[in-house]
Amino acid sequence: MPTDFAATRAMFHLPHGVIYLDGNSLGPLPRAAAARVAACVTDEWGDMLIRGWNAAGWMDQPTRLGDRIARLIGAEPGSVVLGDTLSIKVYQALASALEMTPERRVILSDTGNFPSDLYMAEGLCRTLGADYRLVTVAPEDVAAAITDEVAVLMLTQVDYRTGAKHDMAALTALARDKGVVTVWDLAHSAGALPVDLAGCGADFAVGCTYKYLNSGPGGPAFIYVAPRHQDVVRPALSGWLGHEAPFAFDLHYRPGTGIERMRVGTPPVLQLAALEASLDIWDDVDMADLRARSVDLCEAFIAGVEAACPDLTLASPRDATQRGSQVSFRHPDGYAIMQALIAQGVVGDFRAPDILRFGFTPLYTSDADVQGAVAVLAQIMASRSWDRPEFKARAKVT
Amino acid sequence: MPTDFAATRAMFHLPHGVIYLDGNSLGPLPRAAAARVAACVTDEWGDMLIRGWNAAGWMDQPTRLGDRIARLIGAEPGSVVLGDTLSIKVYQALASALEMTPERRVILSDTGNFPSDLYMAEGLCRTLGADYRLVTVAPEDVAAAITDEVAVLMLTQVDYRTGAKHDMAALTALARDKGVVTVWDLAHSAGALPVDLAGCGADFAVGCTYKYLNSGPGGPAFIYVAPRHQDVVRPALSGWLGHEAPFAFDLHYRPGTGIERMRVGTPPVLQLAALEASLDIWDDVDMADLRARSVDLCEAFIAGVEAACPDLTLASPRDATQRGSQVSFRHPDGYAIMQALIAQGVVGDFRAPDILRFGFTPLYTSDADVQGAVAVLAQIMASRSWDRPEFKARAKVT
Repeated sequence: MPTDFAATRAMFHLPHGVIYLDGNSLGPLPRAAAARVAACVTDEWGDMLIRGWNAAGWMDQPTRLGDRIARLIGAEPGSVVLGDTLSIKVYQALASALEMTPERRVILSDTGNFPSDLYMAEGLCRTLGADYRLVTVAPEDVAAAITDEVAVLMLTQVDYRTGAKHDMAALTALARDKGVVTVWDLAHSAGALPVDLAGCGADFAVGCTYKYLNSGPGGPAFIYVAPRHQDVVRPALSGWLGHEAPFAFDLHYRPGTGIERMRVGTPPVLQLAALEASLDIWDDVDMADLRARSVDLCEAFIAGVEAACPDLTLASPRDATQRGSQVSFRHPDGYAIMQALIAQGVVGDFRAPDILRFGFTPLYTSDADVQGAVAVLAQIMASRSWDRPEFKARAKVT
Repeated sequence: MPTDFAATRAMFHLPHGVIYLDGNSLGPLPRAAAARVAACVTDEWGDMLIRGWNAAGWMDQPTRLGDRIARLIGAEPGSVVLGDTLSIKVYQALASALEMTPERRVILSDTGNFPSDLYMAEGLCRTLGADYRLVTVAPEDVAAAITDEVAVLMLTQVDYRTGAKHDMAALTALARDKGVVTVWDLAHSAGALPVDLAGCGADFAVGCTYKYLNSGPGGPAFIYVAPRHQDVVRPALSGWLGHEAPFAFDLHYRPGTGIERMRVGTPPVLQLAALEASLDIWDDVDMADLRARSVDLCEAFIAGVEAACPDLTLASPRDATQRGSQVSFRHPDGYAIMQALIAQGVVGDFRAPDILRFGFTPLYTSDADVQGAVAVLAQIMASRSWDRPEFKARAKVT
């Protein structure tokens, strides 16, 4: 039975009068999450107190939910664990990956990668010293830059600005041929499109849950380690919950079994409860259906905007197979245009210097949302109503 | 006006029939936290969506709440920020501290430190390579081991097993004389007793909020950096929210101003909402009153147990000035005794190999709790009711 996206849409709280095309920044509230979090607070924390670690299953939640995310990203059972933030998981994956080829010194990435990934890599290289270094090339030059000098290839599969999608299978194969370890950031992939980590032979992957996976603001990140590496990889961030026996309180670290060793500190129980409610929706979603619907929504939006707004330039690949689940347009006054859109209830994102970014999330984006967004954008562009001081003044966070 | 601890007790949800002496592991639910978290979920995440970062103040919450914790630990305004887990903050502080004396290679700690701190230090040393190493000595030998070979002194002020308290002022002064940078872990100090980081001249401190600060399971950690270091320290975990201009999306990291640079990734908004509700209680607590009350509770418990339970040996310092806010006793069958206590509604903690640990938390521990706990423990010891298979069988998490 095909996924019923009208039914999934009804499972989200979508504020009246808002067309929300920013679920690639922060997913909306699954209706069931409010009750699930409240139960976690009142019935679990409140009534069970410390017993909640066992009785409410808090301790195993990071791997239990990890297995549910695994299905969405083509990962093997037992190969994904939740925790920390995406930046920390990037660091953890990179530090672990670099140790696998100690004679190599280069982390290769691209200039389209999300800056935090690059910052964490820079920080790690400086901490490691020697001649460890981060090398970035343009996204289209990555394949040619994969040489046997490279230790780790770190890429975000879908570009956060343009939505352009790397070919994970091809680049991972190229990397493997050169003895390069891969770290894939799935921030804009997990829940956005089918991913096949196992099929591609990826080594490590990381991602966040507050975008397409709708876990709420500050929801935890996840890390994937290919089963073939799980029992040999050394976690640089060696915390007690990654220890073989955390409650033995040994003075020395012994890595835990399998993916457990990538755990670090105490898991964020309230945030995980929200994620759990979201995954109850995801469990019934077929990823091929999701992709087909995502492409339809994106194509309709591109066609509508291009027909009505000649001043906007498509910044995303025109070929749907080259895109994630977002569409971006460029305009020199992109910031003001986005503010004008938001003022009329169409919520997208601006990304410096000139990108208007719109996320399409089949679980709750409707055809009417697409048509409504096109109509508002067309009216704003035709009337130049964005050209006002209140829309041009920049807030701290956009 | 002295702090009214009957009034603060009424602000917590304490399950009927439970005497909770485990707030040093997981603090109980502040009654207001349930509504605060629900509002964060429904009114903020649900209705504001992405706008919550500004409109609901999510983005500044880590420093705003940091300033409220600062008062409790004697830190300067603007010197504390929330985020990540304690293990991550230990790593961050250590990595930053080690860079301040690059010619030194030793992290000094003690065998009473919480294992995760030691594990994170071990992991960092192995990542750094060269001859970086962690040296641990017995708690009473720390002072003598502070030499000019030591780069960083990393100590947990209050021992998680015995409650023995290091003299932070004296050890910090000794360290400073030898050019040693200090990293203090306040896991069992923050909210447990008055701390004077600024007065002691501490360099770095870290701590968690889910124990005495009652932020709930998986609540975020905090880090303190002395103002004199804030603009020179390099954050090894250089994430985008520690960047000078996160939303400029620069390709290179430029550390932010002051304590902001110790931020890494997206803050855990739901967990911070729970912490906020707890700090509403803490804001009105006088730390001298708290300490006096804590000492009274601990002394009464020690006297009661020693009078009634000759088979239990005090594991905590007898001198109150040498203790934190917990009392521990030893017994070879400590695990089974604790299970028997819990079965009768007296909740403490067992810590391997033989420690029965009881936390005393003036915000909600009453005199009746102390008397009740002594009575139940006395009855269990006199009747040997702990000596049953169901109490001796070890669960995974205790």
